[in-house]
Amino acid sequence: MSNDTEKQTASAWFKELRDQICASFEAIEDDCTGPLSNREPGRFERKSWQRTNQSDGAEGGGGTMSIMRGGRVFEKVGVNISTVHGTFEPEFAKNMPGADKDPSFFATGVSLVAHMNSPRVPAVHMNTRFISTQKAWFGGGADLNTALPIVKDTADFHAAFKAACHRHGDSYYERFKKWCDEYFFIPHRNKPRGEGGIFYDQLASGDWAADFAFTQDVGRSFNEIYPALVRRHMNEAWTDAEREKLLEYRGLYAEFNLVYDRGTSFGLKTGGNVDAILMSLPPEAKWP
Amino acid sequence: MSNDTEKQTASAWFKELRDQICASFEAIEDDCTGPLSNREPGRFERKSWQRTNQSDGAEGGGGTMSIMRGGRVFEKVGVNISTVHGTFEPEFAKNMPGADKDPSFFATGVSLVAHMNSPRVPAVHMNTRFISTQKAWFGGGADLNTALPIVKDTADFHAAFKAACHRHGDSYYERFKKWCDEYFFIPHRNKPRGEGGIFYDQLASGDWAADFAFTQDVGRSFNEIYPALVRRHMNEAWTDAEREKLLEYRGLYAEFNLVYDRGTSFGLKTGGNVDAILMSLPPEAKWP
Repeated sequence: MSNDTEKQTASAWFKELRDQICASFEAIEDDCTGPLSNREPGRFERKSWQRTNQSDGAEGGGGTMSIMRGGRVFEKVGVNISTVHGTFEPEFAKNMPGADKDPSFFATGVSLVAHMNSPRVPAVHMNTRFISTQKAWFGGGADLNTALPIVKDTADFHAAFKAACHRHGDSYYERFKKWCDEYFFIPHRNKPRGEGGIFYDQLASGDWAADFAFTQDVGRSFNEIYPALVRRHMNEAWTDAEREKLLEYRGLYAEFNLVYDRGTSFGLKTGGNVDAILMSLPPEAKWP
Repeated sequence: MSNDTEKQTASAWFKELRDQICASFEAIEDDCTGPLSNREPGRFERKSWQRTNQSDGAEGGGGTMSIMRGGRVFEKVGVNISTVHGTFEPEFAKNMPGADKDPSFFATGVSLVAHMNSPRVPAVHMNTRFISTQKAWFGGGADLNTALPIVKDTADFHAAFKAACHRHGDSYYERFKKWCDEYFFIPHRNKPRGEGGIFYDQLASGDWAADFAFTQDVGRSFNEIYPALVRRHMNEAWTDAEREKLLEYRGLYAEFNLVYDRGTSFGLKTGGNVDAILMSLPPEAKWP
């Protein structure tokens, strides 16, 4: 269980990170001189939602979606924050740490998915969260999703998170990279969803401040390396054939999210905010 | 349990129906004078697969996918037949009629999904099958999936299956229409996948010949009404805005198939033929 200061500190950080990321992404739109720079630079639009359709009056909270569509570089990107509390459904509570006896929970986090116009610019997913039941922990991660992977980009993405991990725990990178590889795998295609990254959950070392600092570092590292990778390729022209490869790759991405992603299927089947959950789906995909 | 004659009779019918449907659809391609009639008429290509990657040597059989892509009318349509036998996984066997003591099974069927270029021409799904364990039964159905539904088309589609049902059982239409409405519903969108049709399963009246005759009638009725609906609209021009509505509608369709459809999720998670299972996914979809 966590105290109010911790909850508020975590929640405030996710909001601050959201603002920093949105600013980075809008700056990318401003600076693009590539194929679609005849468009106006994309801008985020915000839309808030309340967690109201619950039968239990103790449920509450809500979130804000920040979505940018049809930009010069970003085809569709969502940066969602939410802070909610309530009681888990019995079926769910028994599988959640610290919720078996008392199903009440608090959860706050930021979740981001970026789909890009260019097949040469990687797409990405990032999420960090803090959850409190009778226990309390951090979780999150980031993974790169590229139709046409480039070895140096993949290496630099991994290196950024390796550095962040090594600043906080000797075993973190090895464990969290492996966890990511295992989670973002599409069994029926027998291939990974993308190039991986890190994934961690139930991080509760006993030192709240240290775990929070790591989660902050993951967010800050993301907001350094990902914009750098985007800028590396955003002004390159691409071919129709490359764009077709991107659209097919996005089919796989949608398959993973709808068939396997625990957050998506749990959210959809338990009355979560559908728009926020499905923000992750690609703006356009093909199964030719 | 069914005898070999019944198994062969059912399997032969599904193959014959496949041939009849493919002929109907290719005739539509020939007769189209609409917006994309500068293309060559589409033709089905066949690809067979064997059920070989099973650890149990008693497993066997296979199927044939017939796929037509990029036609004048049909953007992507698959008509798959398969005849397989083996033993259900223990987890699955306990939920299958007649398989709790002996998990061996035989299954044969035809499955069809058509996605159309024009937002004014309905998409459709049709499937009929015969399954034999220590029990034996038929199942199947058909449902219409239109981005821009037209009242008369929907009514005519339902009327065709109502007539087929009434030729075989007084209660069939009412029960099977309701079953379809309940099955093809997307809870997280709180809307149906399409305009419905009929859906039935575990049909075992005690009269094999009667149940087979009904299943044949469902297939023949499909091959009358659906081509008629396609021909009704295939030469109409459509707008870009209508096509966008089609692509968004297909996003919902993909959500249903990947999140809720039992056949899809079961097939993907148990090593079915991925290409045949995912044939149902739309050639292009949008989540704007």
